[in-house]
Amino acid sequence: MINVTLPDGSIKQVEQGFTPMDIAMGISHGLARNVISASYNGKKVETKTPLTEDGNLVLYTFKDKEGKEAFWHSTSHIMAQAIEELFPGVSLTIGPAIDNGFYYDVDFKEHSISESDIPKIEKRMLEIARGKHEFTMREVSKADALEFYKKNDNPYKVELIENLTDGDITFCDHDSFTDLCRGGHIPNTGLVKAVKVMSIAGAYWRGDENNPQLTRVYGISFPKQKDLKEYLELLEEAKKRDHRKLGKELQLFHFSQRVGQGLPLWLPKGAALRERLENFLKAAQKKAGYEMVVSPHIGSKELYVTSGHYAKYGEDSFQPIKTPAEDEEFLLKPMNCPHHCEIYKSAHWSYKDLPKRFAEFGTVYRYEQSGELHGLSRVRGFTQDDAHIFCMPEQLDAEFKAVIDLVMYVFGSLGFEDFTAQVSIRDPKKPEKYIGDVANWEIAEQAIISAAKDKGLDYVIEEGEAAFYGPKLDFMVKDALGRSWQLGTIQVDYNLPERFDLSYKGSDNESHRPVMIHRAPFGSMERFIAILLEHTAGNFPLWLMPEQCIVLSLSEKYEDYAKKVVDSLENNEIRVTIDNRAETMGKKIREAEMNKLPYMLIVGEQEEQDGTVSVRKHGGEDLGAMSVSAFAKAIHEEVSQSIKKFEV
Amino acid sequence: MINVTLPDGSIKQVEQGFTPMDIAMGISHGLARNVISASYNGKKVETKTPLTEDGNLVLYTFKDKEGKEAFWHSTSHIMAQAIEELFPGVSLTIGPAIDNGFYYDVDFKEHSISESDIPKIEKRMLEIARGKHEFTMREVSKADALEFYKKNDNPYKVELIENLTDGDITFCDHDSFTDLCRGGHIPNTGLVKAVKVMSIAGAYWRGDENNPQLTRVYGISFPKQKDLKEYLELLEEAKKRDHRKLGKELQLFHFSQRVGQGLPLWLPKGAALRERLENFLKAAQKKAGYEMVVSPHIGSKELYVTSGHYAKYGEDSFQPIKTPAEDEEFLLKPMNCPHHCEIYKSAHWSYKDLPKRFAEFGTVYRYEQSGELHGLSRVRGFTQDDAHIFCMPEQLDAEFKAVIDLVMYVFGSLGFEDFTAQVSIRDPKKPEKYIGDVANWEIAEQAIISAAKDKGLDYVIEEGEAAFYGPKLDFMVKDALGRSWQLGTIQVDYNLPERFDLSYKGSDNESHRPVMIHRAPFGSMERFIAILLEHTAGNFPLWLMPEQCIVLSLSEKYEDYAKKVVDSLENNEIRVTIDNRAETMGKKIREAEMNKLPYMLIVGEQEEQDGTVSVRKHGGEDLGAMSVSAFAKAIHEEVSQSIKKFEV
Repeated sequence: MINVTLPDGSIKQVEQGFTPMDIAMGISHGLARNVISASYNGKKVETKTPLTEDGNLVLYTFKDKEGKEAFWHSTSHIMAQAIEELFPGVSLTIGPAIDNGFYYDVDFKEHSISESDIPKIEKRMLEIARGKHEFTMREVSKADALEFYKKNDNPYKVELIENLTDGDITFCDHDSFTDLCRGGHIPNTGLVKAVKVMSIAGAYWRGDENNPQLTRVYGISFPKQKDLKEYLELLEEAKKRDHRKLGKELQLFHFSQRVGQGLPLWLPKGAALRERLENFLKAAQKKAGYEMVVSPHIGSKELYVTSGHYAKYGEDSFQPIKTPAEDEEFLLKPMNCPHHCEIYKSAHWSYKDLPKRFAEFGTVYRYEQSGELHGLSRVRGFTQDDAHIFCMPEQLDAEFKAVIDLVMYVFGSLGFEDFTAQVSIRDPKKPEKYIGDVANWEIAEQAIISAAKDKGLDYVIEEGEAAFYGPKLDFMVKDALGRSWQLGTIQVDYNLPERFDLSYKGSDNESHRPVMIHRAPFGSMERFIAILLEHTAGNFPLWLMPEQCIVLSLSEKYEDYAKKVVDSLENNEIRVTIDNRAETMGKKIREAEMNKLPYMLIVGEQEEQDGTVSVRKHGGEDLGAMSVSAFAKAIHEEVSQSIKKFEV
Repeated sequence: MINVTLPDGSIKQVEQGFTPMDIAMGISHGLARNVISASYNGKKVETKTPLTEDGNLVLYTFKDKEGKEAFWHSTSHIMAQAIEELFPGVSLTIGPAIDNGFYYDVDFKEHSISESDIPKIEKRMLEIARGKHEFTMREVSKADALEFYKKNDNPYKVELIENLTDGDITFCDHDSFTDLCRGGHIPNTGLVKAVKVMSIAGAYWRGDENNPQLTRVYGISFPKQKDLKEYLELLEEAKKRDHRKLGKELQLFHFSQRVGQGLPLWLPKGAALRERLENFLKAAQKKAGYEMVVSPHIGSKELYVTSGHYAKYGEDSFQPIKTPAEDEEFLLKPMNCPHHCEIYKSAHWSYKDLPKRFAEFGTVYRYEQSGELHGLSRVRGFTQDDAHIFCMPEQLDAEFKAVIDLVMYVFGSLGFEDFTAQVSIRDPKKPEKYIGDVANWEIAEQAIISAAKDKGLDYVIEEGEAAFYGPKLDFMVKDALGRSWQLGTIQVDYNLPERFDLSYKGSDNESHRPVMIHRAPFGSMERFIAILLEHTAGNFPLWLMPEQCIVLSLSEKYEDYAKKVVDSLENNEIRVTIDNRAETMGKKIREAEMNKLPYMLIVGEQEEQDGTVSVRKHGGEDLGAMSVSAFAKAIHEEVSQSIKKFEV
């Protein structure tokens, strides 16, 4: 008998040789139906691998990352079989699972493959899947393995095997197909109910352009046809919502090669949107007792030597800026905290002055390799909605709660309803990894956990995930497409107050060290706007829209009336634009729709006579004619519903 | 007879040998009384130098820069005489006029001089002055000059003379005193009615620290006692208003050596002030049809090669920023125009879209030597209230007028009432110096002049002062201390549209080149705030004040009521702070006075009972008790009077 420990800590005593699937069956048939892979003592195993010693077992379903990996890896075997059958004589190379599906790199030799071949590959894959063939691993000697692939005339697998040692070489068989493979499969091909070959691309063997060119065939698969359908719809929707595409269509931002990669230029509508977001947060922060500061975008090298950033990031960053006199060096600032520490140091503080909360929309610059850049999500210059709270340890609890309130207010006003939190604390087994007083860590961790609990957050605690300088809380936010984004980190810091020798005079008249909290609800304006664009598809909440409505004149005869309507709405603090061009109403409406204008106000003879506007909602709904003041009132009501009031 | 041309072009025929003073006498006795120096054919002459050939004569009074120079240079002779008499055996070296007065560098040898010697020097100077001794120039041979100073045991003058050639050496005599001197004196010592020895400092002979150390005695003098009194008062006031001092007292900004010299950190109150100024201009700019954009603080080197800035300033600036991959170079942006050109290039424009007016509070970085840095007036990083107008040549006229309106609105709202304008145009004799089409220059210059005329500006036209890329208009603004500042330049640019190949489609369907206007009413936020601080002594217009009032509680018993008053005022959009400390009312008022709080609202038992506040104005005026709402109303009225409404 052996002891098998499950993730909940319960121990199952089973006979030696029991498989993970046997154990799943013992728990429930429902579970067994869904289990597709497993790990034992931290190592990937097949569901039918006999367990021979005591250990920790984790069972995975398709919902788990590990389950998906086994599922997709297994499907790559199926695709490889299909390709080999349809294109006899090709050489298979490697076929791993990736974040979304899998690929297989194939040398098609004399064959050529094109998009038109995809349906027959998919068809054959589904036939193989329906055969419910089991995946079976077996150990092979290096000699046998080499012989197998030499016979197959496959130099790639031969090269792979030559780099392996006897005892480490396994083959996986299913149906009539055999592949060199390290394992991690689903029980049988029958679990694969839906497949899709996504695309065909070029790739070099081992990623080296001096090597032969191969064909990379990308695919994905699911346990249900419905899952595939949803996935493809999501993909289609994500493409439509790509913030780079929307940003261009809505004229929000622009990249110029001459200005530099990863350095966005904000066009008028984008700059206005950004400013509105900033003003929204500024207003809430003002209520919450923050004070805005402004600091330069460079700092002397000495500043970053003091903060420790230079030692840590110096070589991988934008390099120091020298001066003509060559007696000074500056760095583009990668973060605002050192500057804010110096602002804190500009005065003497007593315990009565704390907390001090310094906020800044601070633009920082970090070097990213050009291949890593992606629209606004990954840039080289971005503006953080940064703030640093300097407080006494005993104030951490209240400060943390207040920051959570602020972050949740931000999420709520921007339509992010679905989020969880992660609390990262020390690894209690490795106290040497952390700086700062143990008692203070205790206070901080308890403050974070109690704040999370108090605020009703859905949170998990991750031991050992804290930074060396303090524990933190991260929010994971789900967007409209179900994708998760990390937003709104709240980070405690014992390190910088130490390095900058910050102090305050306590009620005991002694000098004490304050604690620092870093926090940024948006994170960066650039990345946040990218996420918001994809979340809302550009249909921002009405309070945020750069333009809330547009006046469309039926012809130039009504130009003056249209302008009067604009004036009246502007006097009502409504953001309005006008289209007085000599274009057809159809074209004007189409453009306004493309620009996501929430309301179109059509004015012609009747409207001018009655002093009204005919209101058309974005998407097409006709709200009929109404007076300008009635429309203004309706807009204000909608705005006040779309943005909550921030209360402290 | 010779012909002497006066600055107004009139010609006087006089006998050869007539002196400038003779000619002044011929014009009017009043003028002659005030004339203190002259230039003939562009060369400094004495007022009694006989004129021997035809030429252009300019007569100077104390009001002219040249007149002051002669006056102060002459007074340095008087001071030298006084010192030589009071400290026998000293060696005089050089004694020039400077911007404010003059100095004389003296080797006091065995003597020592201190502040306590100043009164007797001044007394002796006035005695000499009252003697009405004429200044008389005479040519001396090198041998005689050397002999004179060798006998005097003065190695400094000997060194000076050794570097001169025969025929170029002149001595100036007055009373019993003789000095080596190039000339440029007032008629006699009697014109000097008031003298002040300002300070005593160290200086090295010829500014070289390897040379003997001398004593530099600074002085100033005036033709009237009243002028000296005013000057000393102004100096006292300027010291009190020094923006570096006020900035510290009012906690507006801070410099940290660790962040870097010339890189201001804006503290909460300063950042709020800045933001208020920015919002004020933003609101006006919005009305005037500007669109805000946001651009990064760096740009690829290529961007500045294109703009021409790199060739022109590259070596004297912050040096290029390299990247770890070493395949790209960036520059800290010294100006925003190249970025705005790229924003213009991000779309295709037609004549119907123009003008485009892109505005940005853009922070730029320019290297200044550390010795040149001065508070906020001369920094290494500053934020321009920048905008670039891209328009058709025929729109220049209207755009120029609109910009003048905006600039005058800014000046008016900030209490600058006294300003003149300078229009800088081509030197018509050097057409090769300028780029762009002659006809376009003609249009632009006429547009500027007609705009200046139309707007009733007090302007002068300066030929040859235009930049090579376009004509401009500068405002010269006088502050409360009578000092002049250049603010609000409006610059036409034909160069960048060319270099960036900017275009628009005209009504003729052809591609045309737009003209660009650079303009910045504030210039830079940093320098403008420095000037504003010194102009207002920190007593900003009420609309601008970071805090408009402060609630002072008589004791902690009234803390809650004080907070209620604050809430009520905040709900009324009034910027209010509170002092609830357990300090005496006297101390609280003193601090509020020092912080220039415009209104102090004192609350105690009576006020709480009546629901009122007792209002004390900055400076001490007691406005008595009033209801909170009455106070709020009064504040709003004062604010709306202090800021004009911008109309376009």
